[in-house]
Amino acid sequence: MDLWLLKVLILVAGVLALGFVGYLIATILREREGTDRMKEISLAIRQGAMAFLRREFITLAGFTVVVFIVLAIFIEPKPLVAIAYACGTFTSALAGFLGMNIATKANARTANAAIGSWAKGLKIAFSSGAVMGFCVVGLGLLGLSIIAFIWQDTHVWLGFAFGASSVALFLRVGGGIFTKSADVGADLVGKVEKGIPEDDPRNPAVIADNVGDNVGDVAGMGSDLYESYVSAIAASMVLGVIVLGTVKGMFLPLLLSAVGIVVSIIGALCVRPKDVEANFEKQVARAHATMNIGVYVSNILMIIASFFIIRVYVGELGLFWALISGLLAGFLIGQVTEYFTSAEHGPVKRIAKAAQSGAAVTIIEGMATGMMSTVLPVILVAVATVLAYIFGGLLGIAIASMGMLINLGMLLAMDCYGPIADNSAGIAQMAGLGKEVRERCEALDAVGNTTAALGKGFAIASAALASLAWLATYFAVAKIDVASLTNVGVIAGVLIGGMLTFIFSALAMRGVGEGSFAIVNEVRRQFREIKGLMEGQAKPDYVRCVDIATKKALKAMLLPGILVIAVPLIIGFTLGPEAVAGLLIGALVTGFLMAVMMANAGGAWDNAKKYIEAGNLGGKGSDAHKAAVIGDTVGDPFKDTAGPSLNILIKLVGKVAVIFGPVFVMLVAL
Amino acid sequence: MDLWLLKVLILVAGVLALGFVGYLIATILREREGTDRMKEISLAIRQGAMAFLRREFITLAGFTVVVFIVLAIFIEPKPLVAIAYACGTFTSALAGFLGMNIATKANARTANAAIGSWAKGLKIAFSSGAVMGFCVVGLGLLGLSIIAFIWQDTHVWLGFAFGASSVALFLRVGGGIFTKSADVGADLVGKVEKGIPEDDPRNPAVIADNVGDNVGDVAGMGSDLYESYVSAIAASMVLGVIVLGTVKGMFLPLLLSAVGIVVSIIGALCVRPKDVEANFEKQVARAHATMNIGVYVSNILMIIASFFIIRVYVGELGLFWALISGLLAGFLIGQVTEYFTSAEHGPVKRIAKAAQSGAAVTIIEGMATGMMSTVLPVILVAVATVLAYIFGGLLGIAIASMGMLINLGMLLAMDCYGPIADNSAGIAQMAGLGKEVRERCEALDAVGNTTAALGKGFAIASAALASLAWLATYFAVAKIDVASLTNVGVIAGVLIGGMLTFIFSALAMRGVGEGSFAIVNEVRRQFREIKGLMEGQAKPDYVRCVDIATKKALKAMLLPGILVIAVPLIIGFTLGPEAVAGLLIGALVTGFLMAVMMANAGGAWDNAKKYIEAGNLGGKGSDAHKAAVIGDTVGDPFKDTAGPSLNILIKLVGKVAVIFGPVFVMLVAL
Repeated sequence: MDLWLLKVLILVAGVLALGFVGYLIATILREREGTDRMKEISLAIRQGAMAFLRREFITLAGFTVVVFIVLAIFIEPKPLVAIAYACGTFTSALAGFLGMNIATKANARTANAAIGSWAKGLKIAFSSGAVMGFCVVGLGLLGLSIIAFIWQDTHVWLGFAFGASSVALFLRVGGGIFTKSADVGADLVGKVEKGIPEDDPRNPAVIADNVGDNVGDVAGMGSDLYESYVSAIAASMVLGVIVLGTVKGMFLPLLLSAVGIVVSIIGALCVRPKDVEANFEKQVARAHATMNIGVYVSNILMIIASFFIIRVYVGELGLFWALISGLLAGFLIGQVTEYFTSAEHGPVKRIAKAAQSGAAVTIIEGMATGMMSTVLPVILVAVATVLAYIFGGLLGIAIASMGMLINLGMLLAMDCYGPIADNSAGIAQMAGLGKEVRERCEALDAVGNTTAALGKGFAIASAALASLAWLATYFAVAKIDVASLTNVGVIAGVLIGGMLTFIFSALAMRGVGEGSFAIVNEVRRQFREIKGLMEGQAKPDYVRCVDIATKKALKAMLLPGILVIAVPLIIGFTLGPEAVAGLLIGALVTGFLMAVMMANAGGAWDNAKKYIEAGNLGGKGSDAHKAAVIGDTVGDPFKDTAGPSLNILIKLVGKVAVIFGPVFVMLVAL
Repeated sequence: MDLWLLKVLILVAGVLALGFVGYLIATILREREGTDRMKEISLAIRQGAMAFLRREFITLAGFTVVVFIVLAIFIEPKPLVAIAYACGTFTSALAGFLGMNIATKANARTANAAIGSWAKGLKIAFSSGAVMGFCVVGLGLLGLSIIAFIWQDTHVWLGFAFGASSVALFLRVGGGIFTKSADVGADLVGKVEKGIPEDDPRNPAVIADNVGDNVGDVAGMGSDLYESYVSAIAASMVLGVIVLGTVKGMFLPLLLSAVGIVVSIIGALCVRPKDVEANFEKQVARAHATMNIGVYVSNILMIIASFFIIRVYVGELGLFWALISGLLAGFLIGQVTEYFTSAEHGPVKRIAKAAQSGAAVTIIEGMATGMMSTVLPVILVAVATVLAYIFGGLLGIAIASMGMLINLGMLLAMDCYGPIADNSAGIAQMAGLGKEVRERCEALDAVGNTTAALGKGFAIASAALASLAWLATYFAVAKIDVASLTNVGVIAGVLIGGMLTFIFSALAMRGVGEGSFAIVNEVRRQFREIKGLMEGQAKPDYVRCVDIATKKALKAMLLPGILVIAVPLIIGFTLGPEAVAGLLIGALVTGFLMAVMMANAGGAWDNAKKYIEAGNLGGKGSDAHKAAVIGDTVGDPFKDTAGPSLNILIKLVGKVAVIFGPVFVMLVAL
């Protein structure tokens, strides 16, 4: 096939994604924002979120400049890697900005649409999630393919992927700390001390809490998966060039991704909520089923399409099976996540039952559940990796990680739907909408909790596979044939890598602790100093809470950010390139396990609390409920801060290794 | 030097240790048991502990027979490996039996001696701990050296070490589940529901609780370190034969251990408590200092002695420095453990302060503390390993693990002192001794808490180094030159190995959950059905509680026991010998990190609670205290069950690999 035609096809798919985003935005903006009160709240959330982004981006810009200079000085080809890095940073930041901006515009509109009908609400929220989804895949594919079409140099492509990591570090780790600082801080004073309900507008931290949903779950999740997506494609391209030659190796991953975008758009278009009279449970189940149709359609189309593409383009089907291994592993890990975190199954019920024996037993049972929940994901990733390798060697592993992410547009739409529905429920509450509408929004929110749990499991699994793809790429780039466990440097690397996970988690959790402490003090101060606040006659200073949480988040991510970049370099320079491979696998195995454990324990505690609140085992206010609330509070930084941060850790150490791999090797040669 | 002379010297050191044990036992038995009430309680604890041991040993015997048959059929040289295995099992069981029997005879005597003077109490408790310490090193050295003198075959030596592992699995994991089932069960009904104090004789689970201290902390700890001790020596011998030749390789480790025993005896003899008038804190500090003298003396003597031995016997000092690396790493890890778990330093105070914000924050802060506490131990182990390797290759790593354990007699005496002092305080309370005596016993107990924390850190570190020594041995035995991370089987092995840690921890914690649940029901039943129990007019049925906890513990360890043996075999037979190396390192890195995290978080929560109980931050009964109690309860299965169980896991998978390594290799060759 003519290369120009291929290039055009790939670019068209990227543009198509952005065109689809435009269509979605038009759909969303056509809906009204509702009452003045709703507009006002939505505006406050948007302003808060944008204030957070602005400050993050300023720090990020500084960070980028420093890394740019380092890359421009040290990494060949100079300064192309640095330029690609800057492009990667910019496109990722742009995707985060656009997705979150629309999300904050869609929250009030979702609530307002829900006044009309439940299906309309679902449509707006899903469309808004899809904006993030298709911004990510569209900008990711466009950015990477343009870079690749201009410079056919594997190191340059890696630079682009490295850029995506920097943004993910800031948005995922910083966002994670922000969101839980605000959430825990708002709850500790609002719910516990003052006895006012969740999302009460009198609570000065309430806007920060809603901002957090957007910052952590929309922008953070988006940038995390942007990184995984770009990583998987870039790693496949680099290894593809080695295995299949420059042309085929470069075009195959891009072509598959382009088709993935098309089928994802078809999938997203198949999500057509219909209005039917139903009770709460049925509405939730229906909404979930409606979105699942999109996933199934895009998965099936992708399987068929990739079969033909690989068959025609490569000539044999090994890589097709590798792709399918990744796709299936991702799907199945989602199912496992749901089993362990949904209130309909045994594990969550067990935790709820344990809550009857008090908080300590709740924590122990939740930890044990989280630990047990690692078993199948690990086996699935291990099996997928081994199969992918058998079918396609190291390139097979990279292609498997692409398989998991190939329908990302559709999957991310479902993930990002959650926080928007959550926000809409908050706005319905704060704006005092009618009971029926509030219930509809809460049903939308309940679906969002399930899709969010699935999304978390998926994000972790894809991070694990992506980081395995980086390991494979590292071997190729640093020209390492053997990194043997008989080499004591490799063993030391494994140990240090494992330790990185623990230090990273600890710092993230401490960040939440300090952030929420600062919020608590501020909220208490406002209740004390602003007269008439408790009575609803005066307005709290929302901006200050957002500001405090932002500052704390940025401060708390400094050390983890430095560590994740510095430690691989130190190990590479002292113990050598093989030890870095050990470091990657040490970080991967502990980071993957801890991330799954934390995400699932956190999700299970959350739903155990909700299960009790739904009237089981004594219901709200019972001793079991109090114990479950403690479990949920412990779970918050687990599932929304430390756990997701580990996704970034395991991918970022891999990228640092890949980018600086040639330097390590050069030093050894000296 | 004449080999016969060497052999005699080594055997004499072993016999000397047992002779010293005899002397210690005589010292202990010379002391009276005190009042009839004290005799009665001590007898009940001893009977309970022995009942536990009897049932464990019956199951263990069945297990041993099965393994014996498997080894006799499959493992060359047949049936010598099987015979050595049986000997290893027998000597370890014997050490556990003797040490625990004396410990249960020393508890009332310690309390009674404390009536006379504080120094006398300390002496009895320490002597009793030393019985365990010197039983372990004496029987370990004698057993291994006799086996080695009869059969000069490395595989046979490994069989002996494998036997030690089986016992450790039963006593450490089973004992850990027993002790916390009884402890948590006793507290939940006694302290929480009935409001009666700790160690109140009306509580039907009180004897089971005291039995648990002996079962988990004396027998469990003893068998754990017996395993590490024998492992380190056996691994050094196997690698020594390869590097230094049959004679030197075999004799050097045995000779060093023999000298280690002698200097440990000298160290133990230097522990001479003196009576001085002092307040509680000073008494505690003094007791600690008194025992530390023994540690310092034996360490210094050992450094001097090993310098000359290695210099003369090997001719160059590489292995001496390897030994010192291990010895120093062990010592420093003890210091780190103390920093993170003692109430005198920042971390525990931070947790206590966090308790003012409620249980959830206490848990989060404790987890973060536990995670941070892994950093230095990991770095120390990594540095010690790298240094040992630089100084002495793979043999250097094994010698480093010996260095950590070379003074085990003295160190274990200090560790096992703790539970005996704890028991004596319980007996003083139950028998209603005077306030002054009770306070003395509590001071002895307080020292025990510190030495126990040190002991835990040390047990983990030595397990990590021992399992690294096993990895090195595995490479030698299975003739693996390369186990590269570029091999996808190795990566899958790492992932599966990491997962083993999580599944093992989860099962251990679940075991405690189920055990304590059963105890709670039984204690409630007794309070309900036995009339006059609460009024102190009727006696509870202590035996039944011990029986229930024993049964639950044995049942709960079935699955982890099977997994730890089956999974390495499955991986070896399916993915091959290199993948097993991956499994070992995966289990090691996660197991080591999680064990340190759990032990230190648990210890820190425990001491944060005690810090508050000492009158700080609101003292007993305050909200902070309630939160700290929840932290402590979560920490119990962390530090006393799941954490220590991981020591066994990481060593046992290594042994299974080493024993079956030749079979894996044979299968590949087919």
